[in-house]
Amino acid sequence: MDIDAANTTAVERMMASRPILRGVAAARQVIPGMRPNLLLHAGPPIEWSRMSGPLRGAIIGALLFEGLAKDEGAAAKMAERGEVDFEPCHHHDAVGPMAGVISPSMAVYVLEDVTHQRKTFSGLNEGYGKVLRYGAYSPEVLQRLRWMNDTLGPMVGEALAAGDGLDVRATMAEALHMADEGHNRNKAGSLLFLKFLAPRIARLKVAPDAQAEVLQFIGDNALSILNPVMAACKAMTAAAHGVEGSTVVTTMARNGTDFGIRVSGLGDAWFTAPAAVPDGLYFPGYTAADANPDIGDSAITETAGVGGFAMATAPAIVTFVGGTPRDALNATLEMYEITVAEHKIFTLPPLDFRGTPTGIDIRKVVELGIAPRINTGIAHRLAGVGQVGAGLVRPPMAIFEQALVAYADTYKI
Amino acid sequence: MDIDAANTTAVERMMASRPILRGVAAARQVIPGMRPNLLLHAGPPIEWSRMSGPLRGAIIGALLFEGLAKDEGAAAKMAERGEVDFEPCHHHDAVGPMAGVISPSMAVYVLEDVTHQRKTFSGLNEGYGKVLRYGAYSPEVLQRLRWMNDTLGPMVGEALAAGDGLDVRATMAEALHMADEGHNRNKAGSLLFLKFLAPRIARLKVAPDAQAEVLQFIGDNALSILNPVMAACKAMTAAAHGVEGSTVVTTMARNGTDFGIRVSGLGDAWFTAPAAVPDGLYFPGYTAADANPDIGDSAITETAGVGGFAMATAPAIVTFVGGTPRDALNATLEMYEITVAEHKIFTLPPLDFRGTPTGIDIRKVVELGIAPRINTGIAHRLAGVGQVGAGLVRPPMAIFEQALVAYADTYKI
Repeated sequence: MDIDAANTTAVERMMASRPILRGVAAARQVIPGMRPNLLLHAGPPIEWSRMSGPLRGAIIGALLFEGLAKDEGAAAKMAERGEVDFEPCHHHDAVGPMAGVISPSMAVYVLEDVTHQRKTFSGLNEGYGKVLRYGAYSPEVLQRLRWMNDTLGPMVGEALAAGDGLDVRATMAEALHMADEGHNRNKAGSLLFLKFLAPRIARLKVAPDAQAEVLQFIGDNALSILNPVMAACKAMTAAAHGVEGSTVVTTMARNGTDFGIRVSGLGDAWFTAPAAVPDGLYFPGYTAADANPDIGDSAITETAGVGGFAMATAPAIVTFVGGTPRDALNATLEMYEITVAEHKIFTLPPLDFRGTPTGIDIRKVVELGIAPRINTGIAHRLAGVGQVGAGLVRPPMAIFEQALVAYADTYKI
Repeated sequence: MDIDAANTTAVERMMASRPILRGVAAARQVIPGMRPNLLLHAGPPIEWSRMSGPLRGAIIGALLFEGLAKDEGAAAKMAERGEVDFEPCHHHDAVGPMAGVISPSMAVYVLEDVTHQRKTFSGLNEGYGKVLRYGAYSPEVLQRLRWMNDTLGPMVGEALAAGDGLDVRATMAEALHMADEGHNRNKAGSLLFLKFLAPRIARLKVAPDAQAEVLQFIGDNALSILNPVMAACKAMTAAAHGVEGSTVVTTMARNGTDFGIRVSGLGDAWFTAPAAVPDGLYFPGYTAADANPDIGDSAITETAGVGGFAMATAPAIVTFVGGTPRDALNATLEMYEITVAEHKIFTLPPLDFRGTPTGIDIRKVVELGIAPRINTGIAHRLAGVGQVGAGLVRPPMAIFEQALVAYADTYKI
């Protein structure tokens, strides 16, 4: 078994993936396997009884949004009684930040990897404050989701449909030169998204006030492009998956209880262990005691070679996640130790345009005892509250060890 | 004479200046002293006979644009015969990039420094390719100028007039955290400008196609905000001017023939010497032999503490001006040697959020033999061609020596 050659194949496929943002549609119309009583969520599989507060909150909110439950209590009972199915976004070519809940009616972005002819999906980003993805489900949260479904989604979808779509990989590469790292900091990328959309939206036959609302919302939300970026990273990592003998990680995801990874050469198996609480900066009035363990599919960005792995280019992010610009630089340098390639498309100006560290090798992680670094938001541990901060986290080392044992077993090494 | 105290006063005034972009108007309506036969230009005063090719080209273009001359030959004759007056933009609270020609009919940005109640002005940025500011005056150049006057200017002006205007200093500070240096790289700042304008433009009662054209033009031009930034820097440096005993530089400007500076404590006097040819990267087909000496008022950005002085935050700029990211970092570090303060508002994430080097002290320049560093575009030396590259340049040391002699004379030191 030439593991290095297998890993090269995997990471070459990852870097060759070119996902184009094509449009917006209802989840039930486009996501394979979506069905009326199914809710998708972030991270590895999990049953209701083990779900954390923010994931439960988002599920309650989604059931209210779908009109399947009348109130919080009824929604929780449906979930308890098993009247709702829960499956990971990752089992449906989708990804979602934080709780990552996608319900059948929700508007989702549709991306097409033109290299590998694979479609991937993600919801629309809700912005800041009380939002479903952090487990909030108050009337304002549901009202925003309805506006996103009725106004934002259709308008952006129509603007996208009018042309060849947005090359998300190229946009990410450009944003990395503008001090984004592509996970917690998507400020430049979101403005590039706005730049793409604004003239196209101006040409649509819709009410000027609605146009203005949509342009304001996209412009003010520095995470507008996070969800398309995540779906793009899903396409890239999916392209790297399934290479016989490869030890490259193709999924890192958290459901708020467990952290799970999957490995290119190890099929559909998840390797999981309890998720850690991120180390970061808290919003006024909150402390680490309020924090839920790590949650969200957004670690797909690090899996694809950006996010925490690209922090060297985004020193301003330390005002949000803590630490110093030197720490940010060191985070990237450390990740070269556990990856198999330097990205051909994603480059880092402060490191003389060196490619980002790409393709996590479980062998290197275990051998060096260096776990990947992930930038992340921090959710309140209770359902219904929302975001309390942002910071850095690492997956539990145990899951890489499990995966390596499984690899030895699978390949009889 | 407490020179240090005077310099502190000057630089504090510079940093306290808060210029707000208020609107767009015809130069003749708003620029003090503008008159029908007057053309403003970049740099220190200069007569036609000594003007460089690109400045002559821009003047020919402006006379054609104004309808004062029928063709190139007639325009040149008008200029030769003294039928047109030429004065520096800087004598009219205005600034212009490269040739910097402003004619009476041209749409200009109007900024108001709300701290010091001073209005400043600059033209609208034309984007790339054949443009007046680089000395081109072909029909496409004039056609774009007309579109800017008839469509772009009024629409942006109306969008600005609908609100409190754009805080340009705050926008510059934000862009510095997004890897702009604020002179040659205004990519993030221009997108922040677009973000501000897009919803406001969507609400205007104008044809959707015109809206789309304007949004496309502003979004595609990564120098859209350069001109408002320059006018903001003009306000800042003007606020620092006229402090008794101060050795702080308040103007650096080039007309394509001479480089000129003015000093806070030395009144209206210009100190000039021949401008150097920038050292940089040339577009395909051009070399240093094609280059005109340094031209433009845009060195006002460095005078205010950004541009070349802030290169540490903009490593990606080296793909445009040459050198390495380490050179960019060193450029900023070197400028701390010749300045009197670290900016309170403009900070550099890669240097642990240290303020940019601000307020050039002619004493330090002469004593250390370190001239300021300026990022700049490079114009073809012939009228009518346009931009041939971009690079770095320093003012001639002689002008700082002249200024220091004048200072000693003025203050009997």
